[in-house]
Amino acid sequence: MPAPRRVRPSMVEVAGVAGVSVATVSNALNGTGRMSEETRRRVMAAARELSYLPFTSARAAARGGTGMLGMTLTTYGDLPVPYFQVPYYARLVLGATEAAHQRGYLLVVLPASVPAWMWLTTPLDGVIHTEPTRNDPVLDILRKRGIPLVTQGRPPSPQRGDAWVDSDIDAAVRDLLDHLASGGARRIGVVLPRHDDAYPALVRRTYEDWCSEHEQPALVESFPLSRDVPRAETAAARRLLRAGRDADAVFGVYTSSGKHILDAARSLRLTVPDDLLVAAITEDPAYADLSPPVTTVTLHPERLAAEAVDLLLALLNDRTDVPHERLVSHGLVVRESTRPVGSTVLRRSP
Amino acid sequence: MPAPRRVRPSMVEVAGVAGVSVATVSNALNGTGRMSEETRRRVMAAARELSYLPFTSARAAARGGTGMLGMTLTTYGDLPVPYFQVPYYARLVLGATEAAHQRGYLLVVLPASVPAWMWLTTPLDGVIHTEPTRNDPVLDILRKRGIPLVTQGRPPSPQRGDAWVDSDIDAAVRDLLDHLASGGARRIGVVLPRHDDAYPALVRRTYEDWCSEHEQPALVESFPLSRDVPRAETAAARRLLRAGRDADAVFGVYTSSGKHILDAARSLRLTVPDDLLVAAITEDPAYADLSPPVTTVTLHPERLAAEAVDLLLALLNDRTDVPHERLVSHGLVVRESTRPVGSTVLRRSP
Repeated sequence: MPAPRRVRPSMVEVAGVAGVSVATVSNALNGTGRMSEETRRRVMAAARELSYLPFTSARAAARGGTGMLGMTLTTYGDLPVPYFQVPYYARLVLGATEAAHQRGYLLVVLPASVPAWMWLTTPLDGVIHTEPTRNDPVLDILRKRGIPLVTQGRPPSPQRGDAWVDSDIDAAVRDLLDHLASGGARRIGVVLPRHDDAYPALVRRTYEDWCSEHEQPALVESFPLSRDVPRAETAAARRLLRAGRDADAVFGVYTSSGKHILDAARSLRLTVPDDLLVAAITEDPAYADLSPPVTTVTLHPERLAAEAVDLLLALLNDRTDVPHERLVSHGLVVRESTRPVGSTVLRRSP
Repeated sequence: MPAPRRVRPSMVEVAGVAGVSVATVSNALNGTGRMSEETRRRVMAAARELSYLPFTSARAAARGGTGMLGMTLTTYGDLPVPYFQVPYYARLVLGATEAAHQRGYLLVVLPASVPAWMWLTTPLDGVIHTEPTRNDPVLDILRKRGIPLVTQGRPPSPQRGDAWVDSDIDAAVRDLLDHLASGGARRIGVVLPRHDDAYPALVRRTYEDWCSEHEQPALVESFPLSRDVPRAETAAARRLLRAGRDADAVFGVYTSSGKHILDAARSLRLTVPDDLLVAAITEDPAYADLSPPVTTVTLHPERLAAEAVDLLLALLNDRTDVPHERLVSHGLVVRESTRPVGSTVLRRSP
């Protein structure tokens, strides 16, 4: 059904309805400039009311674009990951979808499980590739297809021209380590997965730097991404707690790491936080209800997703005046597992 | 990049790898028959390992299909709904996306905010339309486009041939009312939005039937879906609590209804649950942390989404041997707001 014919509204009209300047309308629709979310919303509402075709998607239409973005969820090789049940990925997907909609685009998630022909035939203006690995086969396909590409998570070996959005892992790990040290920890251990995306390597590097700067021993235990990750990670945590290593704090970097570390402590009859401080980088709200509640670092997946969409649209619109490498800051949510029982602190980084 | 050429694997090979019968492979890939989630997963993993093109998407490819499904989130007219922040819709979207992926399809969410040309040009094999209203303009567009269509939420006036998935509202409301009555409520009130999808009308009908069967007064207060829903719904709840109406229990049907009813009770200095029982049909986990924690009814959005995808794929595959009207049962999560303080009960319906 053809859309009803009418005179195309101008940006001036949108500005009038929204009660802002034409420049603000332009910035809101292009995602340029700084403005409050409220202002951006008002402009989008006015544009919608007037059936004003947002700039970005108007351009997409003009040059035969599809108005559709893709977001891959494909890594971890042979390991089946229930992405939609992991809060981090669920929020990443919802955040990216919402951000795309706010800019007049659709977004489709591309899982490893779809048949290969769909990777080639699904019409897409650009793709956000999640967590690229070393020698990433998906990245190869996407590069050969030749569509604009942003990665969520920096490539393991970033190259000139790569466009990526990532968490500020360095700041997040340092903040967590400082917090553990302020709670009295002097032998902080970390359990790390053996996986070839950039994330565990970045955590390890910052951790080792911090330990050396603070004259603490670096206590790292790795675990394989086998079929039984809980057992493998729990065993790694136990190794950190045994005589000789004697970690007085342990943190992990995956969604269930904190639970596995608690399991390891329990099996060795250690009490948290009296004998051991525990923390994890995770978005799982269930940590608030554990016994004891566990301190977590949030990486703000919605912000990562929104930045990735923003950067991809910049590429689609040939805008070279924006940074192509973007870091999103973390938040630290302090709970009983890392502090003296009885105190109540909620700290969030900017 | 073309997929590597190889002899197409047969269903027998998939069955061999998965360790199941060929019939089970067929059922798993077509979504027919009953089997455990574990078995379905094993078959999908084997099919993936062998690059076996799932039946449904193979057929889609054979007849020029796109392998893409759409899910609309468009209703509530002019009222801007932050769909992705409402737990019900967030879970509906994630559930539908996951169910589509398990069947070899992609899924894209279609919001009211995308430009009209995208409604017409986005390639789709079929659409799940969420919460159809009376004289639904989106439904008209979809019907004229002529693609297979399932609605999530039955149409306000269902017609022969309509395919829909919905919550078993009748069972959910009766279960909640029985529970409130068992807690001593004799004057149960309900706050209902004025909206022209089927949901509030279905709740009202069951509620009035139940009241008449149980010789209780029917106490209904409606509120408009204005810009300030919190204020409108809180005012409606207050009207139920005033002298003359004197409700001793109040429930609501939207995601924040329980909070608004608590606000109304507080403003009248009523104590929950001593003076008033409170409940809501909602997926918001925050109700567990309110003071007091509020009893909720869950409609299991992931199950609704999976049924909708299953029904849509049945239509795409011209299968007439499946029910085209499907009800999904609810769950009742009992908390302090509807029971004597001190008791601990968690009840879930099947």
